[in-house]
Order: sequence, then C-alpha cells, then structure tokens
Amino acid sequence: MDSLLAHINTPKDLKKLTADQLPQVVRELREFIIDIVATKEGHLGASLGVVELTVALHYVFNTPEDKLIWDVGHQAYGHKILTGRKKIFETNRQLNGISGFPKMAESDYDAFGTGHSSTSISAILGMAMASKLMGELDRQHIAVIGDASIASGMAFEGLNHAGVTDTNILVILNDNAIGIDPSVGALKKYLTNVKKGTAKDENIFECLNFNYSGPIDGHDLNTLIRELERLKSVPGPKLLHVITTKGKGLQKAEENQVTYHAPGKFDRTTGELLKKNDDPQPLKFQDVFGHTLVELAIKNKKIVGITPAMPTGSSLKYMMEAIPERAFDVGIAEQHAVTMAAGMATAGLIPFCNIYSTFLQRAYDQVIHDVALQNIPVVFCLDRAGLVGQDGPTHHGVFDIAYLRCIPNLILCAPMNEVELRNIMYTAQLGLQNPIAIRYPRGRGVLLDWQMPFEEMSIGTSFEVKNGTKIAILSTGTIGNKVTHLLREIKNSQSVGHYHFPFIKPLDTKRIQQILENYEHILTLEDGSAIGGFGSGVLEEANRLGVQKTIKVFGVPDDFITHGTQEELYHLAHIDNSSVKSYLETLL
Amino acid sequence: MDSLLAHINTPKDLKKLTADQLPQVVRELREFIIDIVATKEGHLGASLGVVELTVALHYVFNTPEDKLIWDVGHQAYGHKILTGRKKIFETNRQLNGISGFPKMAESDYDAFGTGHSSTSISAILGMAMASKLMGELDRQHIAVIGDASIASGMAFEGLNHAGVTDTNILVILNDNAIGIDPSVGALKKYLTNVKKGTAKDENIFECLNFNYSGPIDGHDLNTLIRELERLKSVPGPKLLHVITTKGKGLQKAEENQVTYHAPGKFDRTTGELLKKNDDPQPLKFQDVFGHTLVELAIKNKKIVGITPAMPTGSSLKYMMEAIPERAFDVGIAEQHAVTMAAGMATAGLIPFCNIYSTFLQRAYDQVIHDVALQNIPVVFCLDRAGLVGQDGPTHHGVFDIAYLRCIPNLILCAPMNEVELRNIMYTAQLGLQNPIAIRYPRGRGVLLDWQMPFEEMSIGTSFEVKNGTKIAILSTGTIGNKVTHLLREIKNSQSVGHYHFPFIKPLDTKRIQQILENYEHILTLEDGSAIGGFGSGVLEEANRLGVQKTIKVFGVPDDFITHGTQEELYHLAHIDNSSVKSYLETLL
Repeated sequence: MDSLLAHINTPKDLKKLTADQLPQVVRELREFIIDIVATKEGHLGASLGVVELTVALHYVFNTPEDKLIWDVGHQAYGHKILTGRKKIFETNRQLNGISGFPKMAESDYDAFGTGHSSTSISAILGMAMASKLMGELDRQHIAVIGDASIASGMAFEGLNHAGVTDTNILVILNDNAIGIDPSVGALKKYLTNVKKGTAKDENIFECLNFNYSGPIDGHDLNTLIRELERLKSVPGPKLLHVITTKGKGLQKAEENQVTYHAPGKFDRTTGELLKKNDDPQPLKFQDVFGHTLVELAIKNKKIVGITPAMPTGSSLKYMMEAIPERAFDVGIAEQHAVTMAAGMATAGLIPFCNIYSTFLQRAYDQVIHDVALQNIPVVFCLDRAGLVGQDGPTHHGVFDIAYLRCIPNLILCAPMNEVELRNIMYTAQLGLQNPIAIRYPRGRGVLLDWQMPFEEMSIGTSFEVKNGTKIAILSTGTIGNKVTHLLREIKNSQSVGHYHFPFIKPLDTKRIQQILENYEHILTLEDGSAIGGFGSGVLEEANRLGVQKTIKVFGVPDDFITHGTQEELYHLAHIDNSSVKSYLETLL
Repeated sequence: MDSLLAHINTPKDLKKLTADQLPQVVRELREFIIDIVATKEGHLGASLGVVELTVALHYVFNTPEDKLIWDVGHQAYGHKILTGRKKIFETNRQLNGISGFPKMAESDYDAFGTGHSSTSISAILGMAMASKLMGELDRQHIAVIGDASIASGMAFEGLNHAGVTDTNILVILNDNAIGIDPSVGALKKYLTNVKKGTAKDENIFECLNFNYSGPIDGHDLNTLIRELERLKSVPGPKLLHVITTKGKGLQKAEENQVTYHAPGKFDRTTGELLKKNDDPQPLKFQDVFGHTLVELAIKNKKIVGITPAMPTGSSLKYMMEAIPERAFDVGIAEQHAVTMAAGMATAGLIPFCNIYSTFLQRAYDQVIHDVALQNIPVVFCLDRAGLVGQDGPTHHGVFDIAYLRCIPNLILCAPMNEVELRNIMYTAQLGLQNPIAIRYPRGRGVLLDWQMPFEEMSIGTSFEVKNGTKIAILSTGTIGNKVTHLLREIKNSQSVGHYHFPFIKPLDTKRIQQILENYEHILTLEDGSAIGGFGSGVLEEANRLGVQKTIKVFGVPDDFITHGTQEELYHLAHIDNSSVKSYLETLL
C-alpha cells in the first residue's frame, strides 16, 4: 500500500483524503512517531495516545485559522508531524532542531506554547474572547487537556471563568488516567465514576456551566469525527470527554506507561528498551535525594515527603514505596503542595517538599506568604535547577536563585555533589528553625561513593576547594565540579583559588571579605540567571564591605536559553569551561 | 443588662455560658466591632457577616487545640476579640498593634496566617494529616472560606486532594456572594442555583468526595450550633454551606457591601461615612490608572482591561462601567488572568492586566512561561507596589522588582508621578513589542494637574531631575518625589544630583556611566527589596562597566516589614527622608 503520510505536509493535504483513508493515516502516523522516538528519544506515550484525536482534529477543524492548543506539548508530536514538521521531526529536542513542545515561533499551527501544564483553557478562552470582540464569529477554539492537568488549580480557574462566558470554546478532556505518573485526587476518582457509569446525574462540568458530552472512545476515529463535527455548531463553552490509552499501539508502552512516558532509545518493533552503558556511573541526583530521604525518614518519624505529580521524576517514589503513610503525591498542585507542607510543619512535622525549580514558580506566592513570612521550616528540594537540556526554556530552572534570594527568612543552598546534598538534607531535619530551599540539577552526580556517613553542615559556611594567590573563582552548586576539572587542566593554575559557596543565602560574608582582600581578580560562576543571582549577591556584599574590585559574573544571560544537550547549552550561555578558561587566560 | 462580652477573655469564658445567653454575646460582639472600626478604621463587612459563626465555632469547638483557620483575615475580627485580644483590638492595624489578619506569632488561636485568599484548605489539610500521623485523632480541623476565595485555583487544589484523604477536616463555605467586590464565575452561579434549589441532585462538592451539608442560615445561631455539633462526629472531609450577609447588623453596610468592606471612619449608629478633608488633593494612583485606561480604550479598540477580583480596589471599575464588553473581572484567579491576557494578546488585543504587586506572586510562573518566554506584549499594571501600610507584610509589594528583573523580554517601569504613569500606559498601547510591568504605589499621587496630554516615553531612558557635582541620588518610582522634597529642604544641596529611572529594565546604562564618571558618591533609592532590586541592577551595571565606586543602596531590608502607616514603615525600613538625609550629611 502506498504511504499516505508521505503526501501529507499540512492539514490541507489531510483534508483531501476520504474518511476511510484515515485509519491508514493513523497507522502510519503512529509508526512514524515510534520509528523516530525509538532512535532519537523523546516523549512517547502521550503522543501515541492521541494519534486518532490528532488526525480527527485536523480533519474536522480548519487549523491554523481555528485555534488549537495542546496542554503540555508531550501530546503534540502527531500534531507537529501533520503540520509541516514531518521532515524535521527527527531534529526534535536537539539544538537548532524543533522544540519538544508546541512553540508559537516555530509554526502558525502552534497557537500557544505549552511546556507547563494546565494553561490551555485560560489561553484558549483569551483567544475566543478576542475572536468575539473582533467579530470573527466562525473561528473555533479548541484546547486538549489531560485529566492530570485539568485537576490543577489554574485549569479550574479557566473553567470557572469560561463557564459564564458565551465564548465558542471546546475543551477536550483527554482522559487516560495518567500524567507522567498515574493521576490522583478527587476529580480523578470522580472521572472514574463517570466512566463506570456510577456517577450521579449531574456532571461536575455541567455544574460549571459547560455543555458536557462523552465519555467517548478516543481511539474510535469515526466517533471522534462525528462528535467533533457535531460540536462545531454547538454554541458556548463545551467539554468533550475522550477516553484514551497512553502509549496506544505499542504494547510495552501501554503496559508500562510511566516508563514509556519518555523511554529513551528502544527497539521500534518489540518496544524493548535498549540497554545503556553498563560501566559504573554516579547515581542521578534525583536518586540520591530519593534514597537519602528514605534513609532519614526511617530514623526521623517527623519527616514527610511531598511531590506535586512527580514521584518518578523526583524519585520520591522510593519513599512512597517504603513509607507510603508519610509520602504524598498531591497531583499537579504546586500551590497546594507548598501550603499543605506549611500546615504540616506548624504541627511539628518536617516536610520535604520536592518541586522542580521551574515548577516552584507556580507556588512563589505560597513560598513567600505561607512559608517564609511565618518562618515555617519547610524543606524545599528544588530538582532540575539550572539548564535542564532537551526540555528547553520552559523547563530550565534558572530563575530560582534570583526569585528566592529576596525572600527573608529563607535559607538557599546549592550543594556541589551528592555527599553535600545528603548532608544538607540531614542538617535540614535536625531542627532547623528556618525554611530552606536546596537546589540541585537534573542528571548524574560526580561521585561513585556517595553514601557516606551524614555530617551536619554549618549554615552559611563556604569552603576553600583550592587556594591561590591572584584570581579567585567563587562558585555555587554542582557547576563547581567543572571548575575543579578546569583548574586541573590549565597549566600555571597555581595562582587561581577556588571557593565553593553551598549557601547562596546566608552568604559567607567573612569569606568574601577575605577573598576580596587577598585576591586581585574575582570571578563568580553559577548555573542560574546572572541578573539578581549568586554573582549579584557577591556584588552586593562587596559593595557593602566598601571593597572596590571588578567582579566578573558568569551566569545565565538575560535571555531564554533554547533546548539542546546540557553541555551545548552551558556553552551557549557562556558558563562552560571554555568560556571561563578564555577569561582566565586573559588574566594569567 | 450586664455585659457578657466584658467577661469573655478567651473561648473558655464563652463556653461557660448557656446557649440562650449567646444571642446577647452576638449582639455585643457586633457592637464592639462596629464601635471600634467606626473610629479606628479597618475591614468591617466580612467580620460583621460571621459574628454568629464565630461565636458558634468557639462555643462548639475546643480552640486552640482544635485548629481553626479563617481564609483571609478580613473575617477574623470577632475571632480576635473572643480570643484574648479584646482589650488591644483598638490597636488593630496600627504600628505595634495587632495585625488586621490572623497571625500565628500573635496568638495560639490563630492557627495560620492568612492575608492572601484561598490558602486555608491546603493549610488545614496539612494540619489534619499531621494530626492523623501523630495519632491525635480527636483533634478537629476547621477552615472558614468565602465563596469568592473557594473559586480560586488553589482552593480547588486543596479540595481535590482532601477529597481522597480520610482526614477529619471541616470546610465551612461562608457564602455571601461577595469578596471585596461581588463574586463572579461559574461556581458562584452554581452556588446561587444551590441556594435557590434549582441545582440538580448531585452536588459539586460531593463530586469531589466531600460530605456536603447545607445551605443553612449563617445568622441562625441555634442551627449553626446544632449543625457544628453534628459534624464533629462525622468522619472524613466535610463541607458545610453557610449563607451569610456581608455587613450584617449595620444597615448601610448591608446595603453597600463594596463600600463597607473597609469603609474608613463612619458614624457608629447611622453608619454614615464621615466626610474627609475637602481640600483639593491629588487623585489616587488607582484612579489615575482607571480613568486613563478608559481614555485610552475609547480611542484604541484593541485595549481590554482585566482584573482578578479587584475592580474597585484597582479602579478598573471605571472601564467596566464605561466599556463593559472590554473589561473583565475574572475573580480571584491571578494565574488565569495572566494567561488569558496572553491568549488575548496573541490574537491582537492589547490587554491591560491590573494585579496588585503582592498578588502577582500568584501568577509568577504565568508571567515567565506564558507571557515573557513567548514575548507576548501584555501590559501589567502592578498596583500597591512598595509598602502598603496597614495591611502589612502579607500585602507589601516589595519583591516585584527582584522577581521581575530576572525575566528576559520584560520591560519593568516605575513612574514617578501621575503624568508619567499616564504616559507609560499611553506608550504601552502604541504597539510595544514586549511585555511590560508598570508598578505604582497605593494611595495618592503628587499632582493636582494630572490629566496632561499624552507623550510617548522612550523605553529605557532616565531623567536628570536636578544636577549636581559630588553626590548622585538614583531613584526609581514615586519615592523620587521624596528626594525632590529632601533636596529642597537641605542646605548646601547644590552638590547633590538627582536622577529618576522610570525604567528598572532596561536600565539606562549610558546615564549610569555618566553618573559614575561625574560623581564621587552614588546612592540608590527604591521602595522594594534591597536584595536583587533596582540598586542591585545599578551595582551590576557599574561592575560591568568596570567602575569601582561604592554605591549606597537604600531599599527595603531583608526582613518582612510589619503593618503601620506608610510613613512609619518607610522609616522602619530606613528608606525615608530622615535616613537618606543622615547619610547625605555624612558626605556633605
């Protein structure tokens, strides 16, 4: 059979086909996704689950004139392939390649960029209200949102507002009972009842004044097309409940939905994961966090663990398995996670609240208002701090230092390695009187022997990694390990001193004073925003001390950094060793 | 009749009374609140509405062992009076007096501080989960939350999680159909149907797995007590729907609920507002914003106005009255407001999204991820920037410069007066290609003639207010007016130059270079956090230029500033004229 997908470059080509040709398109699209993701890696499961829906949407609606938003781009691979990006899809998530998420700058078909969840209803409502004001009454507005994402507060705010407008929006609830990890919460339970038919008459979405239809089978193309066609002419806010299977079409992905969310390389036919390098490698920071928390929690019964929907990604799953009664996945609900942690801490518990750096932005007010203002000792573990790599600008954790440093009472710590991460976690549960945020990056650590006996850390103390005479490098966090390598590599580096500041706040001002007195040139290095970051903290301190020395600040520049490997992005951001080396060479 | 309230110092005293004595307590408590607020000012309406509920809760439950959280402290005056603070209630909101909001440090009866809305369900759930883990199975956990606050996303997240726990929590929905302004949204509409009996069988809270009861009359003490007693022994998460009237007991307050939310001084018997000083005074910045937006929107049909639940406070009400089809109150939904604005802007509208500085913290991720990353030209008008006064630390807008300055693409502007506020609003709708945040303070401006013809501002340009030779003061925002006064007041101020930077980002680096070259001493002044703020931006720039001069940074210190008059707080924060003057005198 001739390929149909080969001839589809845009939805216009899709629309030329007859309805009975579409199942073939679906098959080919699914194979195409599997083929490429098998070798190039990426988010697999979510996109496989919506292949039929993707084809149906572009067949029925008139994109890009009709606005279509995919809530969190994990779902959008099929959409990208059908909308002009088939040939470059193999560059997905690579430097200079296409983004793994919908991105407005990339295509007119990407009506809105979506890397964080639960934004689609607000955005599509804004567009629909604009269409109404501008008299574009024929335009359709569609948001596709998963059941994990719709349970987030922001999505509720969108529904709550949309329900009292007469805008023409269609929210498609892609209900597969899983986000990255299985969905949780009362709404999920309710949706399960709806599916089983055990829910009562009135629907929760009808309570919010939406026209509800479904649930329908999201893998039944004919039903999808019929229902979408029908809804086209139904006025006002509508919600279509579609049931799909994450990973649909690849047996292993259907059976292991968490693993196959983003499985790495795998065999395209069997789905078997390809074995990775067997050499002993340092553990991921995530796992160091996960195992250490269990170790601490076994001894300290006051410890509880909290994650907003990232048990696997954060490795809180280890505590959820070992001590389920004290480890909680609250769903995509960062705001709730933080304030619930505060509530627990007022009662004497010690909550370790693990949130990705970029997602803590969702709970910024709660960190200030509910935690720091009341000086409640919550322990924040900020995973994925710094440049995360292929997920790109929506996921880089580069603002945390700047936005946390201004908050009174909060301790801010960036350990250099696994042992220090463990020690600060240990220290945090010894009766610390302040809230603390501990930031660490995505990916592997630097030590094979990480499970050393715990040692209490002295809050605010820095370390001399290497002494010197002329140039001092002040680093915070794991980027300090790169400095160590660099100084080994450079000849005549004996004049270069290196100081590690695990505490960005409080800063070790005594050490800064000594360094300013003893060194001619000062250089700071961090994997966060250069504006308002660690380097600025050092500048502020030097200025307060009245010391007048130029300080070269290496940090992420005032720009959103694209996607690529972490190494490529460090280079782009000029915080890699070659950038530091060039500068040092001008001084040596 | 002898006063009963006179003998009630704590809830223990209340519990000694018989049920038929309680109506008298209710009357006296209401009078007590009216008497004091009439002369001392404060939040009136919300507390009057829950007098019966307050008495019933402390009569039935065993506070402070049982945990009671009032969502947003506006409601909590009666609670404060019954829990040990009757004698000092007249110090409410004054410097060194009690806080206008519940505050943990103030009383054991204040289980959680609540200045921002919708936090109570998360906090009480955290406490209830802690009680369960600690085996404190008799402890009761109650959150009282208004219908405006429960519609916020964060509250939904709390409900969604609580519904799948078996914790012993009671959420009391205080449904008076109004927040500060009337409630909006689909949930509000639904609650109205519930009250009318036109809602269908299943309740939205039951969908979320809560045991729902009500609606009951919140002014019927016997019913309240009976229902609270009954619910004490009902296990699991419960929601009691209570109908109250905001302002209950003072006719004028019941009739004009928006005005009497915080009415200022009034006649305690008639409720008549006391006339304020009739002298011509500058308008409030809020009104300058409100009127200017209407003026611009009449000419520019692309302009839309958005407020999350603050039409009166922000003065967006003027546009809602004049051009209702383009002005939107979305309820307490800052996250939604920001991303909806982004959606509108992608369609070609120019959204002016007015959010109090402290509440924009709720939408920080949306500003970064949905607006700035996509470089969508939303116009943020940040009201109540700086130290707000009596509302205190929960409401000070002092972090915005630090948390916004690190965001790429975003322009950050702090006009010095009404004319500049108008001009930057005018400039923002001329086709600006970037998002912009315009911050201005609570309260009155400085000009009587504010309605001058619009002039376009050049983004990034600063102004010389006064030239000098030796000392340069660099200020941003309205605090610059204080500098002008100070320099008039000081003898031999001819050597002091004053420069106003309306743009905190992009900074006028050329001007900074000139100042650094021409002046011996530099001083920066702002009404925001000294860490990471405008002063730090100047430091970063001076450092980049390689100029080595000590710069004295005047900004809000690294501490949460208490409540009091704005003047008192400026002094406390050492950013008042006397602090600047002292420093200048050491130099002159």
